[in-house]
Amino acid sequence: MRLSRYFLPVLKETPSEAQIASHRLMLRAGMIKQQSAGIYSWLPLGYRVLRRIEQIVHEEQARAGHIAMLMPTIQSADLWRESGRYDAYGPEMLRIRDRHDRDMLFGPTNEEMITDIFRSHVSSYRDLPMTLYHIQWKFRDEVRPRFGVMRGREFLMKDGYNFDLTYEDAMHAYNRHLVSYLRTYERMGLQAIPMRAESGPIGGDDTHEFLVLAETGESEVFYDSEITELTFGARRIDYDDHAQCRAVLEEFTSRYARTDDTHDEAEFEAQVPQERRRRARGIEVGQIFYFGTKYSEPMGATVVDPDGNRVPVHMGSHGIGVSRLLGAIIEASHDDRGIIWPEGVTPFHVGIVNLKQGDEAADLACEQLYAAVTEAGLEPLYDDTDERAGAKFATMDLIGLPWRITVGPRGLKNGVVELTSRRTGESEEMPPDQAVTRLAQIYAGKL
Amino acid sequence: MRLSRYFLPVLKETPSEAQIASHRLMLRAGMIKQQSAGIYSWLPLGYRVLRRIEQIVHEEQARAGHIAMLMPTIQSADLWRESGRYDAYGPEMLRIRDRHDRDMLFGPTNEEMITDIFRSHVSSYRDLPMTLYHIQWKFRDEVRPRFGVMRGREFLMKDGYNFDLTYEDAMHAYNRHLVSYLRTYERMGLQAIPMRAESGPIGGDDTHEFLVLAETGESEVFYDSEITELTFGARRIDYDDHAQCRAVLEEFTSRYARTDDTHDEAEFEAQVPQERRRRARGIEVGQIFYFGTKYSEPMGATVVDPDGNRVPVHMGSHGIGVSRLLGAIIEASHDDRGIIWPEGVTPFHVGIVNLKQGDEAADLACEQLYAAVTEAGLEPLYDDTDERAGAKFATMDLIGLPWRITVGPRGLKNGVVELTSRRTGESEEMPPDQAVTRLAQIYAGKL
Repeated sequence: MRLSRYFLPVLKETPSEAQIASHRLMLRAGMIKQQSAGIYSWLPLGYRVLRRIEQIVHEEQARAGHIAMLMPTIQSADLWRESGRYDAYGPEMLRIRDRHDRDMLFGPTNEEMITDIFRSHVSSYRDLPMTLYHIQWKFRDEVRPRFGVMRGREFLMKDGYNFDLTYEDAMHAYNRHLVSYLRTYERMGLQAIPMRAESGPIGGDDTHEFLVLAETGESEVFYDSEITELTFGARRIDYDDHAQCRAVLEEFTSRYARTDDTHDEAEFEAQVPQERRRRARGIEVGQIFYFGTKYSEPMGATVVDPDGNRVPVHMGSHGIGVSRLLGAIIEASHDDRGIIWPEGVTPFHVGIVNLKQGDEAADLACEQLYAAVTEAGLEPLYDDTDERAGAKFATMDLIGLPWRITVGPRGLKNGVVELTSRRTGESEEMPPDQAVTRLAQIYAGKL
Repeated sequence: MRLSRYFLPVLKETPSEAQIASHRLMLRAGMIKQQSAGIYSWLPLGYRVLRRIEQIVHEEQARAGHIAMLMPTIQSADLWRESGRYDAYGPEMLRIRDRHDRDMLFGPTNEEMITDIFRSHVSSYRDLPMTLYHIQWKFRDEVRPRFGVMRGREFLMKDGYNFDLTYEDAMHAYNRHLVSYLRTYERMGLQAIPMRAESGPIGGDDTHEFLVLAETGESEVFYDSEITELTFGARRIDYDDHAQCRAVLEEFTSRYARTDDTHDEAEFEAQVPQERRRRARGIEVGQIFYFGTKYSEPMGATVVDPDGNRVPVHMGSHGIGVSRLLGAIIEASHDDRGIIWPEGVTPFHVGIVNLKQGDEAADLACEQLYAAVTEAGLEPLYDDTDERAGAKFATMDLIGLPWRITVGPRGLKNGVVELTSRRTGESEEMPPDQAVTRLAQIYAGKL
């Protein structure tokens, strides 16, 4: 993309309404625009990151054997009356009456609808196990939306639902989701720690939240510091293997790690030596639940089991806060000058800065780099505007592309350009083609 | 994908509520499930096609230099009061009151919001031309939703908006959209004819609708039969070249082609020799508008022009009915046995039918084919269930994958499998690796 043809409305001033870094930086970098309280437009740069995050979620869901579909945003109130949640949900539910005076709502979650789909089409244990998911916009009418996309009213969520014949199979689905979420977050450059939590309006006994540690997090968390040393890494997992998934769950959840809902100070002190006890704040970026037959029983989602009996299926639901993740990633990865995108989610893979637009050699070298980077399967953002070098650097730093190539007449005389890491600030001079090769190596396996 | 692990709830009976072929077939093929009147869930197979169509739209928009972003579904009523459309829009607008008693609505289109974004961030002619688009769910509270996804209430639309300094530039944007839409529809295997139409609630003088001819179309259309001989084909277009785009527009719109809104019988008879006059029905799959300063003037979307004057920008909007396209494609491409997907949008590229599940040689050959097809960058759907061969064929015909490989013990003894075209029904025996090579050739350039 050439910046002269792009729509990147960066702001010089820090918007006064934004209280936390991610909100400030998303506004300043021209990623979002508030349309109403807690409702945002995703400007082109923000939309690109949103799509990359969505793509990673899709890929990891497919890897775990989960099946993508899409449910609508508007739901009938009748479905929610079947589960009893229509009255129970409270004022966060956006209730709507259509032109025929039917009660509708903008879905805050989809347990009822997916259960309805299941009961309409599945009747035998032979079709199990099954996990369906979608990535769809949700609405929760927060009384006080804040922190930008971190606590918006309209937000994008991946929610998945497993259907299993037995408790044991459903717990495997639970473990499998935990494994796939660990992979998912790590690909985004995040450490998200599974912590025991409370289930809230979804229901059920077993639930873990995934939290990214950040000073601006809304939840208080308590954990054993050893947990932060765990990484999922490149290990290979057979998602059908119950024991393998169970082992990962045990590895990542056996140490003390809880949100304030479930925190027990006495237990914390008994289990964790003082020097490893941590109190911090965290941003919730996902949650997994097992809730058994809470929905299948009242809604009649049953299958015939191998003995010929009709039994309600065991279910769980599993969510990733897709739009909120942008905020979480920025909270975890920024500095005074702006955002620092992890390679896995960056909106463009490299920025090309032309120090002297209009200089024949510089323009030509930039065009050649642009073509070579594209040819390597990467997406460059080329600042081909007439701005001063300082302003170009400031914009690149603000929008946080992890790598920058700087091209100027002086370097070109020596046959070199400069490759700079946004994270470390370190620069290295090298011939243009070597810079492209280096970028291809950096991104290999990260896309 | 292995069918034994997929969720493909095909129906044996024809659902009685469905009046037209596409609606019937989408229900029978397990692509959609109605959740409320005019509101559908996209089951896994339907979702796959929806995503492919979306992807083609994104690619062709990028090719034309248009910039992707995303606006929210819920909008503030205040924006629509600025343009005067809040009161004018009528009962098709889904009006909502939030918990703070603010008037909101589920967006049926986005002229106001995009104009608001533009005026907040752009102030100089130097930033023009600019075309922004998004693909987002819309809601129109139709009094009588029908024909499945063809006239639903919640539907997916691509809507794009151009901002230009002059009338001439805006007309180039109009022409450019026409060109890019021709390409877009052809990649989906559709012939969509641009016809002069009326602008309706969007406003403006210049507008063309794109119609796919089909008996079940809701619009009556009148055209010169020569039009159906035009194809865009593989021609290369420079989307910045005003003359080139203009020439395509002239080629495709100079012959008589109108919807009943603008039809003029006397003109029709004067312009078109009798033997070329056609009256038919069509499905609207897109529309382009030029409406000048209709929104920019009341909403204050102005730029400073080269002479230093503040002038309202010239705008147009351009829509593609993404979810509706599935219905249109099926209406245009099906037979008694089911859907026939064009290669460009098929949910899976090839079906693999194992005639004797459990037979060692057949199972092994299928697994090897599955791996080889995947390796070739294509997605197979492998029917690995215990169903009879007849039932497997019926399902494959119903869901409409354009190619099928049939694997059975008898053929394998001679080292061959069978490659069958869904469209022609013709089969050819060949060694498995040759079938994979053939598929790769068929799909080359179509993905």
